[in-house]
Amino acid sequence: MFSRFKRILIGRPLSSQYLAHEKLPKWKALAVLSSDAMSSVAYATEEILIPLSIFALAAMSWSMPVALAIATLLTIVTISYRQTISAYPSGGGAYIVARENLGTYPGLVAGAALLIDYILTVAVSIAAGVAAVTSAFPSLVEHKPVLAIVFVLLITVTNLRGLQESATVFAYPTYLFIFTLYGLIAYGAWRLFAGDAIAAAPIIHETYPEIPLFLGLRAFSSGCAALTGIEAISNGVTAFQSPVDKNAKATMAWMSFILATLFLGVTLLAHAYGVKPDTLGGETVISQLTRAIAGEGKFYYLVQGCTALILILAANTAFTGFPMLASLLAKDRFLPRQLASLGDKLVFSNGIIGLAGAALFLILLFRVDTHALVPLYAVGVFLSFTLSQTGMVVHHLKERGDGWLRAIFFNGLGATTTFVVLCVIAITKFTHGAWVVVIVIPLMVYGFTRVLNHYLAVGEELSLAKASAPGRLEKLRHTVIIPISGVHRGVIDALRYAISISEDVRACYVELDPVSTERMQAEWNRWAHEVPLVILKSPYRSVITPIVDYINDVDQVTHNEMITVIIPEFVTAKWYHRLLHNQTAFLIRAALSFRKGKVVTSIRYHLKAT
Amino acid sequence: MFSRFKRILIGRPLSSQYLAHEKLPKWKALAVLSSDAMSSVAYATEEILIPLSIFALAAMSWSMPVALAIATLLTIVTISYRQTISAYPSGGGAYIVARENLGTYPGLVAGAALLIDYILTVAVSIAAGVAAVTSAFPSLVEHKPVLAIVFVLLITVTNLRGLQESATVFAYPTYLFIFTLYGLIAYGAWRLFAGDAIAAAPIIHETYPEIPLFLGLRAFSSGCAALTGIEAISNGVTAFQSPVDKNAKATMAWMSFILATLFLGVTLLAHAYGVKPDTLGGETVISQLTRAIAGEGKFYYLVQGCTALILILAANTAFTGFPMLASLLAKDRFLPRQLASLGDKLVFSNGIIGLAGAALFLILLFRVDTHALVPLYAVGVFLSFTLSQTGMVVHHLKERGDGWLRAIFFNGLGATTTFVVLCVIAITKFTHGAWVVVIVIPLMVYGFTRVLNHYLAVGEELSLAKASAPGRLEKLRHTVIIPISGVHRGVIDALRYAISISEDVRACYVELDPVSTERMQAEWNRWAHEVPLVILKSPYRSVITPIVDYINDVDQVTHNEMITVIIPEFVTAKWYHRLLHNQTAFLIRAALSFRKGKVVTSIRYHLKAT
Repeated sequence: MFSRFKRILIGRPLSSQYLAHEKLPKWKALAVLSSDAMSSVAYATEEILIPLSIFALAAMSWSMPVALAIATLLTIVTISYRQTISAYPSGGGAYIVARENLGTYPGLVAGAALLIDYILTVAVSIAAGVAAVTSAFPSLVEHKPVLAIVFVLLITVTNLRGLQESATVFAYPTYLFIFTLYGLIAYGAWRLFAGDAIAAAPIIHETYPEIPLFLGLRAFSSGCAALTGIEAISNGVTAFQSPVDKNAKATMAWMSFILATLFLGVTLLAHAYGVKPDTLGGETVISQLTRAIAGEGKFYYLVQGCTALILILAANTAFTGFPMLASLLAKDRFLPRQLASLGDKLVFSNGIIGLAGAALFLILLFRVDTHALVPLYAVGVFLSFTLSQTGMVVHHLKERGDGWLRAIFFNGLGATTTFVVLCVIAITKFTHGAWVVVIVIPLMVYGFTRVLNHYLAVGEELSLAKASAPGRLEKLRHTVIIPISGVHRGVIDALRYAISISEDVRACYVELDPVSTERMQAEWNRWAHEVPLVILKSPYRSVITPIVDYINDVDQVTHNEMITVIIPEFVTAKWYHRLLHNQTAFLIRAALSFRKGKVVTSIRYHLKAT
Repeated sequence: MFSRFKRILIGRPLSSQYLAHEKLPKWKALAVLSSDAMSSVAYATEEILIPLSIFALAAMSWSMPVALAIATLLTIVTISYRQTISAYPSGGGAYIVARENLGTYPGLVAGAALLIDYILTVAVSIAAGVAAVTSAFPSLVEHKPVLAIVFVLLITVTNLRGLQESATVFAYPTYLFIFTLYGLIAYGAWRLFAGDAIAAAPIIHETYPEIPLFLGLRAFSSGCAALTGIEAISNGVTAFQSPVDKNAKATMAWMSFILATLFLGVTLLAHAYGVKPDTLGGETVISQLTRAIAGEGKFYYLVQGCTALILILAANTAFTGFPMLASLLAKDRFLPRQLASLGDKLVFSNGIIGLAGAALFLILLFRVDTHALVPLYAVGVFLSFTLSQTGMVVHHLKERGDGWLRAIFFNGLGATTTFVVLCVIAITKFTHGAWVVVIVIPLMVYGFTRVLNHYLAVGEELSLAKASAPGRLEKLRHTVIIPISGVHRGVIDALRYAISISEDVRACYVELDPVSTERMQAEWNRWAHEVPLVILKSPYRSVITPIVDYINDVDQVTHNEMITVIIPEFVTAKWYHRLLHNQTAFLIRAALSFRKGKVVTSIRYHLKAT
């Protein structure tokens, strides 16, 4: 029944031969791998405005210079990552680059930071998507947690159906969002210059009031949320059609260009139209801006719809990346090995389910509040940027390929810049939640090393390398014990199995009432006299203890290597009938399960009775 | 680890030879078997006063006549039950008496009614006990559910430790309660007659205002809660020292006498001191009465403490009776047979745990409110009284022993009276919750018959009676399949076991990566070349499906009666390391568990690695 349900939910399994078909053309790859980065346009401007507006409304004029600084940072990081794509055409995530060039521990730190960021990508995107919906329909504000749960489940199921289908599903909304937002920006700009804007605010002040440096840096840190997710393309290079290198680099450049223009456009217009972040009512900046530019007509609902859609789908970037990274870590034996294996579908089902659970936990913990989640987000992102770019510098130093000096310059610039930003974020956002990440990353790295050590110890223990030279496999000396509660068809089946697998079979029966024993003994002599039967007394009237004691006695007497306990069990026609049977089997199994040299085998008798 | 925890919690197991020591002297039996009946003094008066006081405060003067009617009823039922003790010295619960004399269905109705009442005894007693505590300490009112949970757990654990210890634990508080309450009544009466009572109310009106008959009957019905639990002694006759008959009858008489005098005394004084039920604040009548008589000194806290204690311990009556009744029903195959067996201790652990769970559910469902639970209580009690007494009338008609006419008179009087009371309760309390019981009892009887029918059908199916004449037990034709993931010590152990139990052993390996397959094949040839190895392709990259398909193929080719799948599994040194292993074994077991002719056996390799 479960497998049928699973089939309905996630479709038929895909054969390996379809793997080649999973490769994505550039336009699809852009949509699938960059929805996270694109979608940050929906909240990055707001994150800049909030700290400024809390200080003073006039301070909001600093938003444009801050946004320009972030766009510059984006350009530097993009150039740096394009070099990574060339150097690692098989997928150069921060984990791989840092591990290969800087060593195991930096690699694990990058891996931990990335795992956290994938989870936070889902959490932040879903929270912001819910905010887009509730901005348009304020009556839904109380149902935020329900909306968040529905969205996470929806996207999880879609991903379990496989990458190819994901790409198709996610491509259209990403483009719809991009074009709608360009449309909004163009219309907003045209109205401004045509002079018919209703905007009450003074159009673009040139006055920049004095603000504390710390405040400016905090606004910058918050806005750096715009950069999250841009590494997805360099991690997912293998998903591109060939020529992989060229296609991925081109896609990376396009993504950064679109992201930068949308982000700058929205920030500029938000300022021009005098939009203030609504920290009490929770209406998003995008929602306010669209209403100010285009009124509350169909276009308003189109923008809100697209924004909600891209935000919710942005979580998909993480659903593509997280299981891949978990699988890499698992193949290196830093995570449980089941995460390394492909499921029935060509995606890593285990990782997807784990990601959905963790993200949902965070979303509900932070009451579906984007603004509360963002500070946790940026530390990990810039930590992995820094490690990845530093790793690239070392890579070029070792390889010294064509244009290695130029490559070192750009990666070095990227590493230095992102490291400075990392320090700024860690300091300005420490008390806002960044401290959590600072604690969790070392804990995760410790966990990774513990898992590796366990697997290494197990491998050592199981290895045949130090075993003596192999001869023939030897048979075990072997005794079978069958505890019975009477003589019936189920017991006869179990006895036939027992005499098939050993010459030394013993049955035992716990006497709770001497009258029953006599009747049972007579039946036994009639049906199963070939097998010796031992009657066990039970002074404490327990059924289990005498059987376990008897097994231990036999063990000591025979000195055999193995004792198999065969238990006749019933499989009932209706599941709830199980409650009426099999208690004894369960208890014997529990009592013996951790003993060495004991095997417990159930011989099942299938009941038709209802 | 679990068994160690169990041992600490419930003590060492008792041997059968201690059974004789479990017999109770009269003074202990009185305490253990009558704490339920006695404790109803704590709430019965209040239950009478509530409906009267809601109608009119003056109507409360009817409480004494109503209490006298209930005391008369108590006397009739006591005489009737003393005859049951004589007729059924091995324990004559309503189930036994009704089933033997009236037939299976009346017996099952009585059984269902009693099971419900045992559960409600625990629920009502704990709720009233919590009310006694919160009357003395009003600040605890918000923590009622926590108090209730703690009390239920406490009493459950105490009962799991065995009957003997229960008797000792429960004897002293019962007597303390009896003597304290007699002290309170005596002091209250003395202060009244000495004339220094502060009581503002007119001392004992002789005016009885006109009230509707229905109201009087409802007050009477509510007060009948005083009779709950008095059948416990006749059910538990076997717990008495010999001469069983005489001791039990004497104890029964003493119990009724003490109960009647305490109940009448409290009702009389509550009226004389003008105590009104506090339906809003929740202070109990006993608490108000004690404060009025003795002030809020040490004696007040002693009375509240004793009352709370006896109420909480009253639940013990049910903890003695419920598992015994469940075991009787289970022996007659109306309940799952595991309920019939004794646990490691001389009590029926399964029944005790079931009772505690059900009672806790009701307590929390009704928000720890005695008054809400009492209406559910009385229907079942008087239903079982009626069936039991009617059964006794039929018994005497059949036996015609010494004094059978006199016996029929008293049992007939008992049956008629309790039947009338049953009708009164069912009518006056129907809308207050009695309807639930009226629905649940037939459902339970239906359930009992379904369980019986299942066991009868299984017995028929398993029976060898119609089988052909027995010859020698024949061996099975038998194939062993071992799925492996590599060659290591665990696999070698499993292979040795496999060749020990069958001549036809086949190993299989799922190929996920051709390079690993080659290495594996080389290892196999070195260590296990005697066993044929089949490499299974996995186009869908699932590990489980190819193995299950292969097993089915072998099944069809060999036409053997049985296929054993041997799975090498690991037992890890630390429980949480299980997360790092054994996924495949679990999935294969799940896929095959309901197939006929397939046995799945795990050969466990005990890892030392940490």
